[in-house]
Amino acid sequence: MRVLGVDPGLTRCGLGVVDGGKGRTVRAVAVGVVRTPPDADLALRLLGIADEVEVWLDKYRPEAIAVERVFAQHNVRTAMGTAQAGGVVALAAARRGLPVVFHTPSEVKAAVTGSGRADKAQVTGMVMRLLNLEVKPHPADAADALALAICHLWREPMRVRLAEAEARAAELARAHKAKLAAAAKQAGAATRTPARRAPLRTPTKLDDTGAPR
Amino acid sequence: MRVLGVDPGLTRCGLGVVDGGKGRTVRAVAVGVVRTPPDADLALRLLGIADEVEVWLDKYRPEAIAVERVFAQHNVRTAMGTAQAGGVVALAAARRGLPVVFHTPSEVKAAVTGSGRADKAQVTGMVMRLLNLEVKPHPADAADALALAICHLWREPMRVRLAEAEARAAELARAHKAKLAAAAKQAGAATRTPARRAPLRTPTKLDDTGAPR
Repeated sequence: MRVLGVDPGLTRCGLGVVDGGKGRTVRAVAVGVVRTPPDADLALRLLGIADEVEVWLDKYRPEAIAVERVFAQHNVRTAMGTAQAGGVVALAAARRGLPVVFHTPSEVKAAVTGSGRADKAQVTGMVMRLLNLEVKPHPADAADALALAICHLWREPMRVRLAEAEARAAELARAHKAKLAAAAKQAGAATRTPARRAPLRTPTKLDDTGAPR
Repeated sequence: MRVLGVDPGLTRCGLGVVDGGKGRTVRAVAVGVVRTPPDADLALRLLGIADEVEVWLDKYRPEAIAVERVFAQHNVRTAMGTAQAGGVVALAAARRGLPVVFHTPSEVKAAVTGSGRADKAQVTGMVMRLLNLEVKPHPADAADALALAICHLWREPMRVRLAEAEARAAELARAHKAKLAAAAKQAGAATRTPARRAPLRTPTKLDDTGAPR
């Protein structure tokens, strides 16, 4: 399974391709960053990112895309641009029928370092160790993109298995409920039928003293 | 000039095409809304919006796109989705070489109603009056898209004229500065040259009492 991890951003958009092997083995295929000039038109910056991502999709043919889910950070304007960059990447992947999954920063940190609160340096360090890199990926966005891809490779099978288990549980629950309903119906047919036939005469109304009116 | 106004959103994305004529005359060409199912994958929702916008661009051939600029609202998650929807629309336009301009909600309200604090009903009312619509555009996102297109038609010529005036002013300032610099250089050549030749002997240092050391 080959995954393209994307740390979205307008000024720097990190891209990292990782192959997942047996168990937890992972191998770096490519890493890089797309930059767009801050003084350029927003639409043209998005186009620059989309075009470069298309090149990566053509060249490395990933089977899935993992994008960092953006939350409103300290800087709202930056967050919006980041969301838009992630959006055009997701669009490019969807056009090719590739699954796109969004992972939160803490999911990525937890997957790679074991702690959802790890700092940038810890994430970079673990990414280097896991992928056997001798040189630190630069800038940090590139390392984050690799971390996203690793996170996806490790979390996705679990997510799929969990979804399957949930589907199975729901199916069992449905079957069980249907069985219960059938049993209740049968029991009802045995007990309720005479009850329905019982009121052969109009029940006598009683007044407050209990005497028949 | 024909403008496609876009009120971006994942659940409802308003689209409105307006032709601008002489002066402030405007004419509605088309209005509608793209909906995507809230339970669908984000990437597929973005694809649904992008595909529909492509259809509109093919069909109505606008010369410019006006998109509402999103700020983080009450709901951060919604704001992110809105930003992403706007991003894929901007991308579609940029791919065709069309200019994309983002307008803030208050710019749109001010352009259409005269007040940046107008409410939805006032905006819809003015849009109906300006475009001679007998039926209220529904949902509100559709009316907002028309308002965006009108805002763009009215603001853009001013924005362009302002930019030209600023460029002219900057050019004049540059020329003036160059002239000043040239004059200063000439003056400097006349006065500074002997000044540079003045310190022929080492200046005598004085101690605290004022006597030569």
